[in-house]
Amino acid sequence: MADLFWPGDERAAEVFSSAAFLDAMVRTEGAWLAALVAAGVAPAAAGTDLTGLVGADDIAGISAAAESGGNPAMPLLRLLRDRAATSATREWLHRGLTSQDVVDCALMACAREAITRVSREVDQQVTALVQLVEEHRDTVMAGRTLTQHAVPITFGLKAALWLGGLLDAREQLRGVRTPAQLGGAAGTLAATVELARRSGADDPVGTALAVVAGTTTALGLDESRPWHTSRAPVARLGDALVGACDVWGRIANDVLVLSRPEIGELAEPAGRGGSSTMPHKANPVLAVLVRRASLTAPMLGAQLHLASTEAVDERPDGSWHTEWTAVAALSRRTLVAASQMTELVTGLHVDSGRMAATAAAATSSLLAEPRSVVPDAATDDLSDYLGATDEL
Amino acid sequence: MADLFWPGDERAAEVFSSAAFLDAMVRTEGAWLAALVAAGVAPAAAGTDLTGLVGADDIAGISAAAESGGNPAMPLLRLLRDRAATSATREWLHRGLTSQDVVDCALMACAREAITRVSREVDQQVTALVQLVEEHRDTVMAGRTLTQHAVPITFGLKAALWLGGLLDAREQLRGVRTPAQLGGAAGTLAATVELARRSGADDPVGTALAVVAGTTTALGLDESRPWHTSRAPVARLGDALVGACDVWGRIANDVLVLSRPEIGELAEPAGRGGSSTMPHKANPVLAVLVRRASLTAPMLGAQLHLASTEAVDERPDGSWHTEWTAVAALSRRTLVAASQMTELVTGLHVDSGRMAATAAAATSSLLAEPRSVVPDAATDDLSDYLGATDEL
Amino acid sequence: MADLFWPGDERAAEVFSSAAFLDAMVRTEGAWLAALVAAGVAPAAAGTDLTGLVGADDIAGISAAAESGGNPAMPLLRLLRDRAATSATREWLHRGLTSQDVVDCALMACAREAITRVSREVDQQVTALVQLVEEHRDTVMAGRTLTQHAVPITFGLKAALWLGGLLDAREQLRGVRTPAQLGGAAGTLAATVELARRSGADDPVGTALAVVAGTTTALGLDESRPWHTSRAPVARLGDALVGACDVWGRIANDVLVLSRPEIGELAEPAGRGGSSTMPHKANPVLAVLVRRASLTAPMLGAQLHLASTEAVDERPDGSWHTEWTAVAALSRRTLVAASQMTELVTGLHVDSGRMAATAAAATSSLLAEPRSVVPDAATDDLSDYLGATDEL
Amino acid sequence: MADLFWPGDERAAEVFSSAAFLDAMVRTEGAWLAALVAAGVAPAAAGTDLTGLVGADDIAGISAAAESGGNPAMPLLRLLRDRAATSATREWLHRGLTSQDVVDCALMACAREAITRVSREVDQQVTALVQLVEEHRDTVMAGRTLTQHAVPITFGLKAALWLGGLLDAREQLRGVRTPAQLGGAAGTLAATVELARRSGADDPVGTALAVVAGTTTALGLDESRPWHTSRAPVARLGDALVGACDVWGRIANDVLVLSRPEIGELAEPAGRGGSSTMPHKANPVLAVLVRRASLTAPMLGAQLHLASTEAVDERPDGSWHTEWTAVAALSRRTLVAASQMTELVTGLHVDSGRMAATAAAATSSLLAEPRSVVPDAATDDLSDYLGATDEL
Repeated sequence: MADLFWPGDERAAEVFSSAAFLDAMVRTEGAWLAALVAAGVAPAAAGTDLTGLVGADDIAGISAAAESGGNPAMPLLRLLRDRAATSATREWLHRGLTSQDVVDCALMACAREAITRVSREVDQQVTALVQLVEEHRDTVMAGRTLTQHAVPITFGLKAALWLGGLLDAREQLRGVRTPAQLGGAAGTLAATVELARRSGADDPVGTALAVVAGTTTALGLDESRPWHTSRAPVARLGDALVGACDVWGRIANDVLVLSRPEIGELAEPAGRGGSSTMPHKANPVLAVLVRRASLTAPMLGAQLHLASTEAVDERPDGSWHTEWTAVAALSRRTLVAASQMTELVTGLHVDSGRMAATAAAATSSLLAEPRSVVPDAATDDLSDYLGATDEL
Repeated sequence: MADLFWPGDERAAEVFSSAAFLDAMVRTEGAWLAALVAAGVAPAAAGTDLTGLVGADDIAGISAAAESGGNPAMPLLRLLRDRAATSATREWLHRGLTSQDVVDCALMACAREAITRVSREVDQQVTALVQLVEEHRDTVMAGRTLTQHAVPITFGLKAALWLGGLLDAREQLRGVRTPAQLGGAAGTLAATVELARRSGADDPVGTALAVVAGTTTALGLDESRPWHTSRAPVARLGDALVGACDVWGRIANDVLVLSRPEIGELAEPAGRGGSSTMPHKANPVLAVLVRRASLTAPMLGAQLHLASTEAVDERPDGSWHTEWTAVAALSRRTLVAASQMTELVTGLHVDSGRMAATAAAATSSLLAEPRSVVPDAATDDLSDYLGATDEL
Repeated sequence: MADLFWPGDERAAEVFSSAAFLDAMVRTEGAWLAALVAAGVAPAAAGTDLTGLVGADDIAGISAAAESGGNPAMPLLRLLRDRAATSATREWLHRGLTSQDVVDCALMACAREAITRVSREVDQQVTALVQLVEEHRDTVMAGRTLTQHAVPITFGLKAALWLGGLLDAREQLRGVRTPAQLGGAAGTLAATVELARRSGADDPVGTALAVVAGTTTALGLDESRPWHTSRAPVARLGDALVGACDVWGRIANDVLVLSRPEIGELAEPAGRGGSSTMPHKANPVLAVLVRRASLTAPMLGAQLHLASTEAVDERPDGSWHTEWTAVAALSRRTLVAASQMTELVTGLHVDSGRMAATAAAATSSLLAEPRSVVPDAATDDLSDYLGATDEL
Repeated sequence: MADLFWPGDERAAEVFSSAAFLDAMVRTEGAWLAALVAAGVAPAAAGTDLTGLVGADDIAGISAAAESGGNPAMPLLRLLRDRAATSATREWLHRGLTSQDVVDCALMACAREAITRVSREVDQQVTALVQLVEEHRDTVMAGRTLTQHAVPITFGLKAALWLGGLLDAREQLRGVRTPAQLGGAAGTLAATVELARRSGADDPVGTALAVVAGTTTALGLDESRPWHTSRAPVARLGDALVGACDVWGRIANDVLVLSRPEIGELAEPAGRGGSSTMPHKANPVLAVLVRRASLTAPMLGAQLHLASTEAVDERPDGSWHTEWTAVAALSRRTLVAASQMTELVTGLHVDSGRMAATAAAATSSLLAEPRSVVPDAATDDLSDYLGATDEL
């Protein structure tokens, strides 16, 4: 993917690209077909491999044809039927599914990949932050509230609170479910049950449910009743991604403030941040780009909630269609920001000398509280006024 | 509370009202003071009861005085000191706390109350929906996708999918944590540790942590490290409330569509929805008002995420201040919508005759799928084409 | 109004309070009644003055009764009829109107008041900024891009760019239209035309339009065709208010950065910003509170656009109802921020010595561009590298 | 462009594609260079044509290299310098500009193209709606409020109110300004003035301003002082695009309701809306896809306002970077929706027979108001109760 409008986009590689989404739709059709065969609903001859039948070169055509029915599953199906190896495959492809099943399964499969990769980045960040906490347990610096000097803290405490936020976000990411969507036209599995009945199944409903279970497993998704108009899975996925961006944005803000030249307590890893005309500049560009993502994530999350609540009938009349690009963009941006944040915290330069100097110069401000709240305290040593920092 | 701009607001009673918020701030100061005394940090004489020292009549004055420092905890403290029973209380009030501690604890205590009440409504809705599912297991109706007739479903299935969404939302509500915020000026507990040291405590840090634990328990909040600039607790609370509104909005949309006179398959409980000039009107006003809430919840949720990610330093420079009204409004609106939805689903009128008639008239459309996907199917009976409806 | 959740709220006084909104609804009913009488549609005896018939004590009752029909115009009408001086007034009140007419006219009347007051604040800010521009035409300071030192600028230039943004916002505010809404049940004026016909009017339609024109003039609103489901007037009002908050937020951000103790180039007017425990603190609280407003305005603006686009039929089924609190909150917050910004820019302390010192210390960075882009430039004087600053 | 996530995206052709954006950046560098030569600041030999030096094949490389400095202007500049025809061009390229100038000019040039094309669609829609208004001046139908039958209207009136909204949106689109951004590193034109001085210009500042004016004209943009951190131009562009989507969404909602099979008063032009499994379906897919756009536009507009208010210093530290994709996506989606709406309103099928039948069947409801408000009215004819419909 090349995106001039979102520098760093390459970090997300093919996650939730058009090609990846197309591939996931094909895998959905393939898994369903295989499950129909496995359950004896479709004949063995139908069970050919769909892999490679369509590819990146088909994206433009499918995309152009998608408008007519309102989604890309329909033109994809036509292509697959045109190119299927056997007439049995042509006949049995997609039977029992609806286009929303295909699109929703593909969205969830792509989302699962995004979550997995984001989580790997978070794990690396946790390691880096744990090290910063250890290292700077005793690095005294000025605490700042409402932009002004407050009381002394340590940089270790600041890093520990960053870490705390990150652990919360990791927990939320781990809890994300990515359910399969396999219900047919109105979520009843009616066509599948009917096909199972006609194949002579003893228990047509049980057979249909087995097809669902087999497909779900093959796609690596979570079991679920149909959720065509119960969109919490998408909204909660969004919440988890936004929650991760929240934490990184909050860290980026500290880096941006503390790397201002007049403060100079933190600096990004070297090698980026040049200017087109000012050779001396070393802009905190990772933090800038992470902050960028975090400023857009909340509204993408809201977009997904709006889609969720605007569902109606057995398939929504427009709100569903807003989810695709929102969840794709949010996933990619989160992954890009994750990768940038890993680079940032792994290579973060902490100037403890500058921290000490600023704190020392501000001693009278930083110790104003103890002198007020604990009037006869006689300390002049900032390290004496760190409270429970070490235990938090 | 009287709010001409939000009909139904009375249903939220005093939850997250200014008076409730003020009361929760006072309880926070009181619990902290009691914990200081219990831990031996403050003398027994300081431990007077703050209950009743300030009340509804003080709201205007505190509100007016809140601008100077940027939050209402400071003018409240001045009032409490003016009115405290003993000089020891005056001296020990708020020592070790910062104003953000007081505001955040009060927000969380009010939120806890809101969550509790919303959950009670959800429980009632679950009961009502379970009954609708049971009752309408065989009530055939037209399934509708993209506004058009699709295949037959039952109203029981529709209600079951509503119920599924609701159970997800309930699970999310149950997972909400409402942590105490007790860290002092920069989250280090420095003043409290210093006070504990001066009181002769053997383990001043342990003593300070005991004060935190005691206060947390007294307030019924969850234990937590300080989160002055790690705002996930507020954002996740928001996500859960928005998630609940999502489900209700989605149900309301179905009610609004299906109670259109040309469809007439559902109707609200009687007694509301009159017009100022058209005596015949029975507008689906509960659904309208629930939909209203669900259209505003996503952006309030986004507002809280934005606040979370815009945190910086040891106390944010404006983003924190956006949370108060957002979380209060979102909590109240959610509770109002919860109550309206309980009334709606409890009294929902289902016209199964009309459902049957519409479905019958649309048989050729509703059975177009089986005739296409299962070409030699000979059914003319909609009930034969319900698939796994009964098992979902 | 006392609002513990929005410090500074008192600055908006009664603008868009429940009482003001109620009063505007009464004025709408009164103006319509007077216009009916003036046009000869209603008898002279109907034309009694409604002023004072309802008041602040009725807010709670009307609010509680508003839920049943979904808006406060209906219970208000019942009260007015109960208390009207003559039976003719009772009979003629509201005839030809629909409740949406009353609510929308009242919203627009309150909005007009808000716009007027906000504009007055903007005028004062313009004056203050013009003075800062004049005064600091030669006050050299470091230009900063992406948080780092770039090239020299003057504080006069910075203030001029603030001013430019403000003038744009003022232009947008001046362009806001606040149209009357007077169309009756479905926007056709059907009842009014029928009443005019029955009163013997030669030209019943012309007479009805005259009633509309008279009411519009009396309310100080702009003429308009009905816009029950064409909500651009509300959305564009929102855009203008958000646009003003945008400018102030951007100024506040500069104040917040430049008043950090390590930079110290700007300071808020003295007298605010104290801390509950740290006596030395002088937090930039006006900037903090303005920034707060500017972080919430965009989503309120989006809420109004969502309401606009979600309109349907001849009266929307929920989206309309979201507008009332959004436009009231946005108006009040904008007015509060306006007033705070006036105080801030009027009393802003500019430390030109500190600006000069920082710039001087950073000379080698600030002149890196000329040394690169204009290689043989020999200047060491920051004032020589200000380009067209004076002309911009 | 092929976008599987946004069916219909092809309708926006290359507007605001990566290629178009790249081309606009090259044109900006070219126009500036030409203006430097024309003003005698750069030698004639520098003035070579940049057209064709970079193209679509370079997008991936520039995109990948953009992260390092945070924007695509820097790697583009390196490519242009590598490939420039003469050493004088290499030397003079970009001198006096900053990368934000190049990006912002390109954004505005792309936006201008989008506005132009959207406006053309709006003009066609106006024509179609005018015709619908004329044609259906007497087509009586049920007016509907809060989903229920209210009083009779005509379809001509409904179309006239759609038209009114559209004319408002057109006016707003026409007022959009797309200013050039040409200020250099910190908006002072310092480098350009310095270069002009060294070229021997009598009036270096005047010469620099002439370079700005020449570039602005060549790009077809509006004159402006620098607006690096005064982002109203982008926010107001966004407001206008959102305003247009608002109107279309509102029309689409009516189409979606009125084309429900139980109502059947409107139908989309034939030929779209098929289903993957249900051959009978003719979904209102244009309305669905327009509604989709209108549900996402408000939050993109809010995103641009947030970017505007979060500006700081002389170049923002992240908020600016959020604008690019937001304005590109909003522009493309608006153009796609514009084109779909043109097709929809041009081919809209109005079933006046069905309208008449529904209204007739609902006469007692539709005339409940006159029977109540105008008690002795004896009309049974819906056409008699249309009020001023014809004049509105």
